[in-house]
Amino acid sequence: MSESRPKLALIASQGTLDWAYPPFILASGAAAMDWDVAIFFTFYGLPLLKKEIKAGVSPLGNPAMPMKMPFGSKGFQNFNWPIPNLVSSNIPGFESMATSLMKKTFKNKGVATVQELRDMCVELEVKLIGCQMTMDVFGFSKDDFIEEAEIGGAATFLSYAADANVSLFV
Amino acid sequence: MSESRPKLALIASQGTLDWAYPPFILASGAAAMDWDVAIFFTFYGLPLLKKEIKAGVSPLGNPAMPMKMPFGSKGFQNFNWPIPNLVSSNIPGFESMATSLMKKTFKNKGVATVQELRDMCVELEVKLIGCQMTMDVFGFSKDDFIEEAEIGGAATFLSYAADANVSLFV
Amino acid sequence: MSESRPKLALIASQGTLDWAYPPFILASGAAAMDWDVAIFFTFYGLPLLKKEIKAGVSPLGNPAMPMKMPFGSKGFQNFNWPIPNLVSSNIPGFESMATSLMKKTFKNKGVATVQELRDMCVELEVKLIGCQMTMDVFGFSKDDFIEEAEIGGAATFLSYAADANVSLFV
Repeated sequence: MSESRPKLALIASQGTLDWAYPPFILASGAAAMDWDVAIFFTFYGLPLLKKEIKAGVSPLGNPAMPMKMPFGSKGFQNFNWPIPNLVSSNIPGFESMATSLMKKTFKNKGVATVQELRDMCVELEVKLIGCQMTMDVFGFSKDDFIEEAEIGGAATFLSYAADANVSLFV
Repeated sequence: MSESRPKLALIASQGTLDWAYPPFILASGAAAMDWDVAIFFTFYGLPLLKKEIKAGVSPLGNPAMPMKMPFGSKGFQNFNWPIPNLVSSNIPGFESMATSLMKKTFKNKGVATVQELRDMCVELEVKLIGCQMTMDVFGFSKDDFIEEAEIGGAATFLSYAADANVSLFV
Repeated sequence: MSESRPKLALIASQGTLDWAYPPFILASGAAAMDWDVAIFFTFYGLPLLKKEIKAGVSPLGNPAMPMKMPFGSKGFQNFNWPIPNLVSSNIPGFESMATSLMKKTFKNKGVATVQELRDMCVELEVKLIGCQMTMDVFGFSKDDFIEEAEIGGAATFLSYAADANVSLFV
């Protein structure tokens, strides 16, 4: 079935700014290489289909992010993330700051924003599928999403992925 | 090799209530579509094989869960999770509350419990494989698990997955 | 293409000590079974290519790790991790202790260290590829990595994975 074009099937299950990058980077990269690509947005990843993406960086949920290690970072990977180690993950406003710094760093390094990467995916005809069950549970309606979004379930994903060259759960 | 039935190979590596859903939903969904399915439970996901599943929702480890954002949620995806934003992730008893609310929401929306989904997987003859190495490290014995559980290692998973249509690490 | 040797394509995206294990265990296991294996290190996983691995255990980012549940662990999976429940994730020095205890437990159980598993991967000729974009964003240079490391992008991974039997995003 995938004789002419290789096929990539992605599940995007996470909703923070940093973890929004991998599915959109892989999808746009593959589509640029003329692969047939679909992303199934489920769980915490579903809001990435919203008209306006509001993802942020969590100081709590990203274990390897040194910026959220106020109490020494000896045991941790040393990233050159430009955030002072003193910053506590309990300080109000920390998230906005971390998010803003991450966006600036990526911009300075010439990396596209999540919004831009998603636009690229749309242009390159990546299929963007929202998970029906997650919509029901969290109370989303199709109108909340960009108009290119389709709606489907686990069966939709599995049918698509069945003959994909690469399937990844992000 | 997979001419008649498509094949799904899953690794379940996470142990909180929310992250227990994806592997069981995908597995039961695929099995209902008559796929041949196996889940390899390893790492933090191993206890999902225990006779009684005791998974909870962590306020710490789920970055995109707005309920654990006591200090403003501007940068975050806005879920309609019915938990007041004021609730601090440091408040004792928060986990029980979050877990209980998540269970209620899922129930109200007609979503099966993790326990029910696992039962469904057993009925649909999904292979449930516990990771030997994780058992050794964490001190589990086969008796701790449901009787349908098999025991295996990375090689067991790889041999199964080698000709699977879809393999996912959750 | 993969007639003689099965092929495994891994993405290692996480940087804490615990989550460093799955890719190295799967990769060394597959290579020992004579599979052709590549790991693409990206995002928080990139520092796993550094000459000296300094990964630690995060008390924040591992939801199912009971040791970081100072406020009761009722809703949680009960691991036999030898860390007192009283320990607060906010206590300075907690990370070093958790990391040290994890290392000891693994050692006592005869599990190789991450460093040893990586050495094994090198010996078994697992391809170790660092993500160029992550290097640019975080300010890494090729000299920071072990000499066996290659550098590539999403296209490198996709080209490798296109005909892999199993692809996993860890």
